[in-house]
Amino acid sequence: MTRVLYDLCGIDEGLRFSPYCWRVRYALAHKGLEVEARPWRFTDKQALAFADHDKVPVLVDGDEVITDSYEILRYLDRAYPDAPLLGDAVAEGRARFLKHYAERALQPAMMRTIIMDLLNAVHPDDRDYFRESREKRFGRTLEEFHSPAKGLSQLDAALEPLRGRLKEADYIDGASPAAGDYLVFGSFMWARTVSSADLVSNADPVHAWLERMLDLHGGLGRHAMRITDVEGAYR
Amino acid sequence: MTRVLYDLCGIDEGLRFSPYCWRVRYALAHKGLEVEARPWRFTDKQALAFADHDKVPVLVDGDEVITDSYEILRYLDRAYPDAPLLGDAVAEGRARFLKHYAERALQPAMMRTIIMDLLNAVHPDDRDYFRESREKRFGRTLEEFHSPAKGLSQLDAALEPLRGRLKEADYIDGASPAAGDYLVFGSFMWARTVSSADLVSNADPVHAWLERMLDLHGGLGRHAMRITDVEGAYR
Repeated sequence: MTRVLYDLCGIDEGLRFSPYCWRVRYALAHKGLEVEARPWRFTDKQALAFADHDKVPVLVDGDEVITDSYEILRYLDRAYPDAPLLGDAVAEGRARFLKHYAERALQPAMMRTIIMDLLNAVHPDDRDYFRESREKRFGRTLEEFHSPAKGLSQLDAALEPLRGRLKEADYIDGASPAAGDYLVFGSFMWARTVSSADLVSNADPVHAWLERMLDLHGGLGRHAMRITDVEGAYR
Repeated sequence: MTRVLYDLCGIDEGLRFSPYCWRVRYALAHKGLEVEARPWRFTDKQALAFADHDKVPVLVDGDEVITDSYEILRYLDRAYPDAPLLGDAVAEGRARFLKHYAERALQPAMMRTIIMDLLNAVHPDDRDYFRESREKRFGRTLEEFHSPAKGLSQLDAALEPLRGRLKEADYIDGASPAAGDYLVFGSFMWARTVSSADLVSNADPVHAWLERMLDLHGGLGRHAMRITDVEGAYR
């Protein structure tokens, strides 16, 4: 059986930076499932027409086609019940809160900090699309939106609940990681792959958790290509 | 069997405003357990000597004495397994994140907004203790710390993940409330009982959830005394 994940790539085919695709990469590894992570670019809408969708991740698992990172996690728990990701209904409700925490508290703060790095990391053919869609979303130019000082200060405040949790446990989900960790960690992989910005101080319990997450599943995150690995790309 | 909860009261014995005690009041109601909520004041340390503790909530349940709101929730799940509050280990890990979210993201923002209302709501005999302990914690006078503008703007940002979750479900924990909801809602009861400040706009999905939470368990929160109910107390 072929299992294919359409995975956002940047200026180099090996540079994979979507926070949503990283959630899925970690979830697949958690289940012990192999996957071909096929490179896809923002403007390559045609390649996803078969899924009636225009964004990644898209997972093709045999005859199944699943879109949206959260729905993919749910699918994986249904199709491969061993090593649960989301857990029962109450556990899943709380995982959904963590999803929104990543998307609505962490990512906007990170975005403010790394937006110019992101523009630099996307494929040159995608840059017009990226600039136009993001400037529309932010209601201003990327240059006006960009403010590492504001972004880092916003991120510092947003990290407070995560700090509290990681002072008392190795993972958000307890003694070992599951969907709660992957949903949040994807956002950090996004920033890590496109930027060399230090988002979290060494002394922060979040930093120790990030190091553990990078090492999981054979160093899946640790060994991922970063923009600084692409010769001449980081500016 | 007697069941007693030592519960923080303010300028009126009926004014109960501790966010941590409210968590426990809701958790007990969730289990269908009766309790005598005995009024206690900050400076009445002697009354808690039997528990070797100096803060409320303290729950006395027959021969058991349990301190700390979160530990009381855990105790209730052990002693009364029907109608679980916290759930299994993974669900509980995520509930702990919600606890930190309430304490480290929501409450500091609310505190900034309602600190002078809080001072006004505590019992006159407790005010010196309250001012001194809080000024030490904040590193400045209550008057310097007080800034509804800053607090409300901080709260607006902190509510983002909660908004996302409550757009898709009636309760944080899903179709019906459990510990995730109570851990967070306690903070809103704290603000509601001591202040008439509008913290959340009518149009916000968080507002609709607050209304639902107030009505739960026979209107437990809705019928709670507020400072505005105490004649001549609100200024």
